[in-house]
Amino acid sequence: MSPPYYAVIFTTIRTEGDHGYSAMAQQMEELAAQQPGYLGIESARNETTREGITVSYWKDAESIIQWKSNVEHQLAQKMGKEKWYASYKLRVCRVEREYGFGI
Amino acid sequence: MSPPYYAVIFTTIRTEGDHGYSAMAQQMEELAAQQPGYLGIESARNETTREGITVSYWKDAESIIQWKSNVEHQLAQKMGKEKWYASYKLRVCRVEREYGFGI
Repeated sequence: MSPPYYAVIFTTIRTEGDHGYSAMAQQMEELAAQQPGYLGIESARNETTREGITVSYWKDAESIIQWKSNVEHQLAQKMGKEKWYASYKLRVCRVEREYGFGI
Repeated sequence: MSPPYYAVIFTTIRTEGDHGYSAMAQQMEELAAQQPGYLGIESARNETTREGITVSYWKDAESIIQWKSNVEHQLAQKMGKEKWYASYKLRVCRVEREYGFGI
């Protein structure tokens, strides 16, 4: 998809241990992929510092609001604050232009 | 800084080996931090898949254009294509809203 579209930059610091995180993260990726307006996801984490960045891509701002209010996703959000993340920051962005190399 | 501001999402797949990458990456982070409009940077890489995400934050779109045209940075961009990256994608985004937890 060509710009304009939307990106959610989700920057996190994980707590120690798993506490069901990995299973739920995979489940949320699969659930996100089924939502209207979903375009894709990219993720990376530094296992030493436990700092990670996940970027999900969406057709428009409305799709992001819908995904945020998904009931299963809301449970995951609650668990995230209670167990999995020491801190996080989420930014909703409008992708204005893009280019690449080798892809 | 509160939205609106800008983010550059730089998603990469590294080639095998270092080839001077680590030194140049650190140098570019330091150089970026000296540019007008620079707000910060976040980075993570999966050492197994060699997939990484670096997000830099900027006051406005003009600051990003200036940084892209920086002479030392242009040399690094050239080396990136020749040696360090199997592929990359760069997206310029306008951050519209943000929120966080635990920070």
